[in-house]
Amino acid sequence: MTTTPDHARAIGQWRDLLGDDAVTSDQDGLDALLRNTTAYGPRSIVAALRPDSVDDVITVVRIARETGVPLYPYSTGKNWGLGSRVPPRDGCALLDLGKLNRIREVNEKHHYAIIEPGVTQQQLGEYLRERGLRLLLNVTGSSPKSSVLGNAIERGTGFRNHRTEDVRGVEVVLGTGDLVRTGYWGNDDNIREAHHYKYGMGPYLDGLFTQSNYGVVTSAVVNLVPAQEAMRMLMFTFPDPRLADAIDTVSGLFRDRTLRSIVHVFNDKRILTMSASTESATWTGVTAIDGSAAYVAFAREELTAALAPLGGAVTFFSQEDMAGADPMVDGMFRVHSGESNSVFMNGLYQTLGDGSDVADPDDLDATRYGMLACMPFLPADGPVVTEAVELVEKVCAQYDLVPAIALNPVDANALESVINVYFDTTDAAQVRNAHACSAALHRALYEDGFRFYRVDIANMAYLTGQDTPVWAAGELLKNALDPDHVIAPGRYGRL
Amino acid sequence: MTTTPDHARAIGQWRDLLGDDAVTSDQDGLDALLRNTTAYGPRSIVAALRPDSVDDVITVVRIARETGVPLYPYSTGKNWGLGSRVPPRDGCALLDLGKLNRIREVNEKHHYAIIEPGVTQQQLGEYLRERGLRLLLNVTGSSPKSSVLGNAIERGTGFRNHRTEDVRGVEVVLGTGDLVRTGYWGNDDNIREAHHYKYGMGPYLDGLFTQSNYGVVTSAVVNLVPAQEAMRMLMFTFPDPRLADAIDTVSGLFRDRTLRSIVHVFNDKRILTMSASTESATWTGVTAIDGSAAYVAFAREELTAALAPLGGAVTFFSQEDMAGADPMVDGMFRVHSGESNSVFMNGLYQTLGDGSDVADPDDLDATRYGMLACMPFLPADGPVVTEAVELVEKVCAQYDLVPAIALNPVDANALESVINVYFDTTDAAQVRNAHACSAALHRALYEDGFRFYRVDIANMAYLTGQDTPVWAAGELLKNALDPDHVIAPGRYGRL
Repeated sequence: MTTTPDHARAIGQWRDLLGDDAVTSDQDGLDALLRNTTAYGPRSIVAALRPDSVDDVITVVRIARETGVPLYPYSTGKNWGLGSRVPPRDGCALLDLGKLNRIREVNEKHHYAIIEPGVTQQQLGEYLRERGLRLLLNVTGSSPKSSVLGNAIERGTGFRNHRTEDVRGVEVVLGTGDLVRTGYWGNDDNIREAHHYKYGMGPYLDGLFTQSNYGVVTSAVVNLVPAQEAMRMLMFTFPDPRLADAIDTVSGLFRDRTLRSIVHVFNDKRILTMSASTESATWTGVTAIDGSAAYVAFAREELTAALAPLGGAVTFFSQEDMAGADPMVDGMFRVHSGESNSVFMNGLYQTLGDGSDVADPDDLDATRYGMLACMPFLPADGPVVTEAVELVEKVCAQYDLVPAIALNPVDANALESVINVYFDTTDAAQVRNAHACSAALHRALYEDGFRFYRVDIANMAYLTGQDTPVWAAGELLKNALDPDHVIAPGRYGRL
Repeated sequence: MTTTPDHARAIGQWRDLLGDDAVTSDQDGLDALLRNTTAYGPRSIVAALRPDSVDDVITVVRIARETGVPLYPYSTGKNWGLGSRVPPRDGCALLDLGKLNRIREVNEKHHYAIIEPGVTQQQLGEYLRERGLRLLLNVTGSSPKSSVLGNAIERGTGFRNHRTEDVRGVEVVLGTGDLVRTGYWGNDDNIREAHHYKYGMGPYLDGLFTQSNYGVVTSAVVNLVPAQEAMRMLMFTFPDPRLADAIDTVSGLFRDRTLRSIVHVFNDKRILTMSASTESATWTGVTAIDGSAAYVAFAREELTAALAPLGGAVTFFSQEDMAGADPMVDGMFRVHSGESNSVFMNGLYQTLGDGSDVADPDDLDATRYGMLACMPFLPADGPVVTEAVELVEKVCAQYDLVPAIALNPVDANALESVINVYFDTTDAAQVRNAHACSAALHRALYEDGFRFYRVDIANMAYLTGQDTPVWAAGELLKNALDPDHVIAPGRYGRL
């Protein structure tokens, strides 16, 4: 920081700019915003700001620079399991982008939308359905009220594609206060088509604004999935001893391009929270197959032949099969069809009780239901994945916790896995135990040679303390694009 | 520049470091290096340096900073049509990376290679074939002696994939002199698998080192194509009035994922240079179909049904069909099979004569065969593409030139097109005419709302003078990563 933070001056200028209704600075209001499912805190924050235009975001950033009060931006604030709205350090103002919620444009033929951070999965999905567009949103299992853009720049994963690979351009207010649009989007106005080709000319910059803290992303062009003539959801199950075989089989099916959509592989702990049944195979894989009706029929035969030897069930579901289906199957079918829904959220509310004490299922942070996520990248190598799963189960057992595991093969080579542990945020002993387990998981995996593709605010400093060359390069860029370090200090970077 | 360039001191220090054999500074030697197929020049250069290790590159960059003499790096120097080895401004030392030519690692199961800039298409292709690995190189139509890495970071396009999308990580000496590796590659050494997942954690930086001048890329991890059970080359032809229909049909085939590999669509001018025949359809499309034998048979039926209505031939070629095949067909089959060859180079030598005056077909710059490339991005929209082609033909006709056109649909939304004009570099009037035509093409296309995805050194300044917001953002990064502007000044950035 180049100045001593002047909180009073900052709050005064933000109030003048945004109006009193868009600035929270009373302690009760701020405490409510900081309540979080990860039970992180306490954390001292200066204010919470709710601008509703890009111009105001630019001025908010300039005030931050002038007064030395850093900003912690979020879209809808639902980065659950990784920290929700809680900054990694004290002394920030929260920058809530939820009121920037315009769908600026949708192009059906070339299948993209230009959206702002506050646009939710539900909002964009309904927009497409209401207009009868032949487009699907690549949704996640999170709340329908969660942000599409926020998850994409955090490099989350949807049920159809890698969310980052959906991005065709970003509009960002740098820490300098300058507005930048990437690729052809930044070209002068007489261009015919700016959003058909993400690279533009010159350095390709989109990646710079994912998992970083160099600016405030105020809009993104996101790819939508063209609806195909036919779609089936494939579910396949297998027993624990076949895990290595299953991972290698799925890798091979990506390698020969029989699989073209991300696969999720859930353990029984995760499946049973969502299902009406009380029994599950140890592992359940799920993905979408789409294309012409002829192609889907063709792929069905190839996939059945490849997956049946794993010793479990191989089932293809169509829309017609959803009448009377198990809620887990129905919810899974809907996310693979581009319709966000609450099957995963409701599952979460089955972890400690029956969920009847939950007022608003989209407001996890306000409940007692605690969740911490540990997200290692795993190589698509059967024996290595088995070893990682055994390590995870061993560490969790030391804390008397049973992890909910999703092993998500994204291509022939990589799994983006998600390990959740659940606890009651109102029970201090459970909170301490869960935090200790999360720290132990990150350390044990790291020391065994594994790395992470996303991380929560509490384990960030452990990782940035280890892999120093990567983070040193990031600091050169930080100093150039956010010279006063006013954007999300310590988030995907060193404090 | 922060210092007045001290040429003598720079050359002395580079000689001390690299040895006299690795430093050229005599005028005849430098003149030979600057001869180029685009007939650009004259250009004053200080020296040419040929380091053979990454450590020496680091020291070369540090000497450049200390002495104020900027570097113009190239891999094998064959950026033909865009400028070859010629810097955009006077006063640079050429940095020839051809002696950094190690294949550091090849991983068959997870299909990647770690290569240095001097590794050629031929070298890597032969490495894979000699070891019987089930991997293909994604090759271009350029010389077998051209660099794989150089083309990838220039964002060139191979016959199977976008070359940039092959990149899974880069090692780069920044303009500061610091060595950076991206993604997990930059992590500490006890990581199990660094090259399975390109994103790593934190900002994704690979794009920053494509089409930019922030550092010297000394190695890259590149994806290789897993060999499939079956592969066919698809060729289809159509008459000029069906161009718009053909583009929209191909776009649809990408959208429903029947096409999964880049398509090249050549005009007759381009095809006839390569063929033994003297007749060609106006347009010829070519791509690869691969997968299981059953899948290839299935796709063949779907593609035939979709493309036959365009009114031309739809033909599938296998290896067995190559006995006695036309040289154009044979050369095309080989590039789609991962084997670089000289069919396109030989075609180039048919443009002014019969090529019998060419001593070394891999050294285009030493011949009289001149070629300028204009590379607009076109939206995958039939009528718009037709309009662009008509504009290109109209402008070229004003200069009595017939353009060789390749319209290359890379996905459902974008064409990376290549427009070549040919001329005799020993004929001053032809040179002037071709340069004027190239400038006119860029201006006419730009003013009509089209943009470019690559550009030669002569038209660069015109474009960086137009789209100022994009280039201003690039300068923030330039100042951070190359504060003394010693790396390729004016290449994909403002001078």
